[in-house]
Formats: sequence, C-alpha cells, structure tokens
Amino acid sequence: MACPFKGLTDITRRNFFTAAGGVGLAAVAGAGLGFGLGPAARLFERNPRGAEKFYGAHQAGIVTPQQSHSYFAAFDLTTDKRDEVVSLLKDWTEAAAQMTQGKSVAGDGGDARGLLPSRLTATFGFGAGLFSKDGSDRYGLAARRPATFVDLPKFAGDQLIMEKSGGDLSVQACANDPQVAFHAIRQFARIAGERAHIRWAQTGFLSGGNDGETPRNLMGFKDGTQQPKDHDKFVWVGNEGPDWMQGGTYLVARRIRIALEHWDSMDVAAQEEIIGRKKISGAPLTGRNEFDALDLNATDKDGNYIIPENAHVRLGNAAANGGAEILRRGYSYNDGVNFIAERWPPWRQRIEYDAGLHFISYQRDPKTFIKMFDRMAKQDALNQFTTHNGSAIFACPGGARAGEFIGQRLFV
Amino acid sequence: MACPFKGLTDITRRNFFTAAGGVGLAAVAGAGLGFGLGPAARLFERNPRGAEKFYGAHQAGIVTPQQSHSYFAAFDLTTDKRDEVVSLLKDWTEAAAQMTQGKSVAGDGGDARGLLPSRLTATFGFGAGLFSKDGSDRYGLAARRPATFVDLPKFAGDQLIMEKSGGDLSVQACANDPQVAFHAIRQFARIAGERAHIRWAQTGFLSGGNDGETPRNLMGFKDGTQQPKDHDKFVWVGNEGPDWMQGGTYLVARRIRIALEHWDSMDVAAQEEIIGRKKISGAPLTGRNEFDALDLNATDKDGNYIIPENAHVRLGNAAANGGAEILRRGYSYNDGVNFIAERWPPWRQRIEYDAGLHFISYQRDPKTFIKMFDRMAKQDALNQFTTHNGSAIFACPGGARAGEFIGQRLFV
Repeated sequence: MACPFKGLTDITRRNFFTAAGGVGLAAVAGAGLGFGLGPAARLFERNPRGAEKFYGAHQAGIVTPQQSHSYFAAFDLTTDKRDEVVSLLKDWTEAAAQMTQGKSVAGDGGDARGLLPSRLTATFGFGAGLFSKDGSDRYGLAARRPATFVDLPKFAGDQLIMEKSGGDLSVQACANDPQVAFHAIRQFARIAGERAHIRWAQTGFLSGGNDGETPRNLMGFKDGTQQPKDHDKFVWVGNEGPDWMQGGTYLVARRIRIALEHWDSMDVAAQEEIIGRKKISGAPLTGRNEFDALDLNATDKDGNYIIPENAHVRLGNAAANGGAEILRRGYSYNDGVNFIAERWPPWRQRIEYDAGLHFISYQRDPKTFIKMFDRMAKQDALNQFTTHNGSAIFACPGGARAGEFIGQRLFV
Repeated sequence: MACPFKGLTDITRRNFFTAAGGVGLAAVAGAGLGFGLGPAARLFERNPRGAEKFYGAHQAGIVTPQQSHSYFAAFDLTTDKRDEVVSLLKDWTEAAAQMTQGKSVAGDGGDARGLLPSRLTATFGFGAGLFSKDGSDRYGLAARRPATFVDLPKFAGDQLIMEKSGGDLSVQACANDPQVAFHAIRQFARIAGERAHIRWAQTGFLSGGNDGETPRNLMGFKDGTQQPKDHDKFVWVGNEGPDWMQGGTYLVARRIRIALEHWDSMDVAAQEEIIGRKKISGAPLTGRNEFDALDLNATDKDGNYIIPENAHVRLGNAAANGGAEILRRGYSYNDGVNFIAERWPPWRQRIEYDAGLHFISYQRDPKTFIKMFDRMAKQDALNQFTTHNGSAIFACPGGARAGEFIGQRLFV
C-alpha cells in the first residue's frame, strides 16, 4: 500500500506532535484495510494537522485523502475585464499557496496564525460562465471551451434552486478544522472584491470511526467503499483535452437533501435492500466484508437478485456502467431545519431537516457522470428519500507549478 | 489542576487507543495553561472519543469541557396530555443514557454501532410553553413555574425571527463528531413522534489549536477565556429554587449573525479595540498573557482608557457587572450564505455569510444575563457587526439520578 501521507509536508515544530500522532493512527488503521487499494484513493484522515502540498501536476483536494470538513463556494464573475479575471486567479493562487502551508496572506486579519494548517486544500474550477454568459464572449474565451465540457441536462426528479446552482468559478476548501476551511474561503472572497461575488456556498463534513476507515453518510452507511483505483484512466484529463485541462478533471456538485425523517422510520433490512449493502459492515449483500466485490448475478432461491435491480450500488457499479467509474468526494451537509414540502408519501409539509449529501464527483469526461446518473435518477430505490436541489459542473484545470497560476495555460 | 477527564468513562477496548491519545495530548496542552482555573471550567477537548457520564447531580453538557460540535434543537409540544409529556421525558432520558454511552436505542437503525461515543452529551431544557401556552395551563404546571424564570425582554437591536426563537423543550447534543450529535437529535425527534415536533435547530462547531487551548470564534479571537470558576455561586440553582431546579441552571440561547465581510475588512488594531483583547495571544489590551486580569482603570498618556469604554470585554467583565458572571458555552455556526440586508453601512443587500455565534450561556438567575446584556446591546462596539436573530430561554432541571427521568421532580 502506498504511503497515504506523501502529500503531507511542512510539519512545523509546534504541530509535529499532533501530526505525528495522526500518522501513527492512520498507519495502524490503514494496515487493516490491506492491499489492492489505489494510492490513498479512499482514505479519510480527520486527525493530522500538518500541511498538504499546493503546487503539483494535479490540484490538491481531488485524490487527496478526504479531510473532515469542507466549505464549497461558487462565485459569479462581476467584472467584464479579462485582465481582472487573470489577476484574480493570480491572487487566488498566491493566497492558496500561502494558506495551505499555514501562512497568513496580506490583510487577512492574522486569523491564520492562531490555527494549524489542518491539511487545508483549495481546489479551483471554471464554470460555463467563464467561457460565455448570456450569449456574450465576455473574456474572449468562448472558443476555448472544450467540447467535452457540456452542461448537465435536467435529470428526472430534479428540483433545482437556481440560487444554489451554477457559478462562473468554484473554490472548495477542505480541512481538518471547519474554521480553517471557512477562513480560506473568506480570504478568497475578500481578495476577489468587486471582481467576483459568492453565488452560493455549502458547508460539509465527514464522520465515522477511526482514521483510515470509510466514513459514514447521514443514512448511517459507509460511503466511498467503491472508488476508481486508476486515476489516469478515470479522473485525469489526458491528451484528449486542451493543454490547460491536462492533469485536470471535471467536477459535478449536487446538493441532495435526504428525507432523514422517513429514512429513520425504515427498518435496517429495508435500508439494506435499498442500498445493496449491509449497514454496519458495509459489505455487499452478496458478501461478508466491506471490500468484497459485488456479485450482481447472484440470486436467491426464488430467482430474485440478491442485490435488487434498483439497489443503489448496482446502478452505480462499474460493471453496470460499461466499466465506467467516477471518483466521489462528497460531504454530508447539515443546514438545520426548514419548512419543506415532501415529494413522497406521506407528503408532509412542515419543519424538516435540511440535511443530506453535498455530492461531489470527479471524472475525466462529464458524460460518464451524465450517463450513469441519468439511469439512477430514473431507477434508484434511494430516490424515494432524496431530492436534488442544487447542481453545478466545473472544469478543474491541471495543477499549478511553482510560479504559475491556476488555469494560466487557458489565458495564453 | 483538576483532572479534566473525570467524567470520561466506559472506554471500550476498541477506542481505548484513540481516547488515551486524546488524554495524553490534552494533559500536555493543559499543563501549559497552569493553575488557577476552575475544575475543567473552560477546557475544550476535541479529540477524545470515549463516553461522558449521563447520570449525576447536574446535567452533563453544561460545565463539561466543550466538544467540537453541537446540534441544538428546540421542540414544540404537540400533545395536550400531561401523561404524554411525562412519557416523552422518560423515553428521552432512557435514550440519552444509552446513546451517550455509545449504545443503540431501540429502532435507531443501528447507526450508533458504527460511531464512537465521542463524548456525546444531551442537555435538556424546559421553555415557558411547558408551563402555560396562549393562556392555557395545558399540563397543570402553570403554578410550578419559578418566579426566577422570566421571559427575555426585547433588547436593543433585536431582529428576532420567531421561527428561530422560543420552544417548549430544548435538547442540545454536543459531541466530538458532528454526526454523533445529529444522530442523537434525530433519535430524540423520532422517539417524540407526535408528542413534540422540532421548532428550530442550529448546528455549531468550535475550532482552534490543540486540546486545552481556548477555541477561536469566527472573528479569529479566542473566546471563553473569562469564565466563572465558582459554579455553585454562578451556575447552579441552590436552595432558592424549587426542588426540581436545584442543581439545574437557566440557559439563554441567542443566534447572532456576524457581518464577517465587514469584520474581515477591518485591520487587526481596530478589531482589538472593539474586543479589548489582542487577537493572537488573547491577552487583554492591558496585559501580556491570555489569562492576565483586565485592568479596566488603566489609561494612556491622553487619559483615555486602554480598554475602551465600549469594548466588548469591558462590558461583559464581572467587575463592570457588580461581580456577576455567566458561563458561556456557545458554538460558532455556519449556515453558508443567504440574501441579507445589512443594518450597518454600507447597507449592502446581497448574498452574505449566514454565519456567526450560537451564543449559549448558563446562569443561576436569568436576570444576571438580562442586566448584563441589556447594557451590551446598547453600548457594545461589537454591535456594529452583529445581529441577534434568534432567542430562547430554558430552565434546565438538575441532573437525573439512575432510575429517574429528567425533570421528574417537576411532575410529582
């Protein structure tokens, strides 16, 4: 198994003890999960407080082991000047390079000095509006939009709130401290000034057992067991993309409210039929251990599939999608309660949890997600409990090398 | 210094390693803070994953060292039967006693099995509506409402949203894992069924450096340095209260949005004048170290107070309040962004952070809070950045002994 900490650098004397403690725990936990996993592909490391590398061939925060907290912000560009877009990306890159290493940025109120780096990553994406908006080629980039970078169609059941969807630019800050993530976004927003305004934002978190164990979503199931191991094949854009997208990837974000009141009233056996996995172990209904492969053909004595035809894991499985895989890196969200009208029986209209999953996936080609999700939106048994109310897609360029800014090669 | 872990029990073999690691770190960090602190009065312990005691003379979650996450829910009672209120409190007590020890409750979907206890506490409070509502003595308790338990007045600047205020019952779940706290509230809501519905809910978190250090609020300042050391004098109701409130306390909750966009545009020196403390160290402007006493009389060469007359810490200080103190146990909250009309220059109306402080204080007599805050609401320099939009007060009865239910002595 590859060392899951190869990105962990710059452990200062002050936080060495904490970070080292985290490494120790993770190494112990990780060892139990064994071989055959991709390089740190599905690890969740909630304890280390050191710094993640910022510069590199890929942006951090994509195949980086997930941190415990996320703050995702989508921005609308409010300038009509290409130069100001360039200067914004330069300023953001510089600030991200500083903050991820636990350093202050000019004018940040000194807040970062009191906090540890906490594995902060900042991941940037470009929305359709950077290329053209309302028919206007406002920055001279319309011709540079990759054909691959399509808009998402309307999916079955979509109940999208436009104020929680779209955006010209995205920044996701992830860290093992919610305030470190939020602090970073506040700095990006402050630095943006009148060049870009926040359009929507979403906080998120992961929880579960010890470091190295698959986190559990708000439905109580392990989430993230099945992930692509071959990132070059499934995540990173290769030669097929323009120069600036090579080493990059496409991000899909979906705000999925889960009717947890209804979910909590189901018995565990019913929940397991819907998901296709066992609740506590995470094993497929056809297996004994979390990482056992699904047996999609196994049937019971009556000839019914053991993993039902509309089970969530069947529809998302590579074997059911012509071998296609997506990298999921979402976070649970919890926005308290709100007055909500349910779309499923018993069609209650009252104060309900506004909580669920801020689904985030990365894929080399958005069509992979679209094809997979189109079928899930129609057939997934889980749809009885979920409502997609926010949606966005962004092109995340390749990583910046030292001295470059994020997306630089798009502007040359 | 008293051991901050005396409430930490039931370390199972599985989580001993983690919990022990937490103890070790905390002991190291705590040692640096030194003597003179009350018994664990202001410690913040974000790492231990063991269990806190549930039964005792006081409810847990009040003077308990703060956990990293909170989920606060206020309920409206929807039954008109006194017996159903009693059965609800019995059911909640039993569930809390189980869940805080990391055990499942019947029908909880097995979720707790995959999570560690994470120092979960559940703290219950009674709102005015338990005693009478809309003029109706619906449970025969109107005469039992203590005279001390007054309603909060309207304070200067209040912009209260009724849907985020009040409530007949409150439960705050705190834990070192956001999902553990939320899971507990979901179980309380499920168990309540048609006896009580959630009225409002608020998630919260703390962040900062290592265990034992004072956490930092969203303004980047250490928050919680000054806390009462004598809980019997300032927190717990004594002989002056009815039997059921002895060993209990009064809880005030205020949802305080902070205009962080404006705050972030201030330089640090100005922020420090407003607060009355130094940002990084937390020391008063008249001192060098975080725990130095405030010198409220110190003046500069021009005769001006070094801690300004309208500085936040001056107005909240015991010496400026006739020796009165309150125990603060609030959490930062972050509900993303929302369309907000600012009440201060530059009176912007646009998407802004819906984030700030879910202020929670405990005091032996609500009048202590009312007197202190009435002046702060009028004079505090910090008011330029804050808007109180939610408010509630609850009587938290004394703790339950094994075999009792929370509040039992109110119903005999």
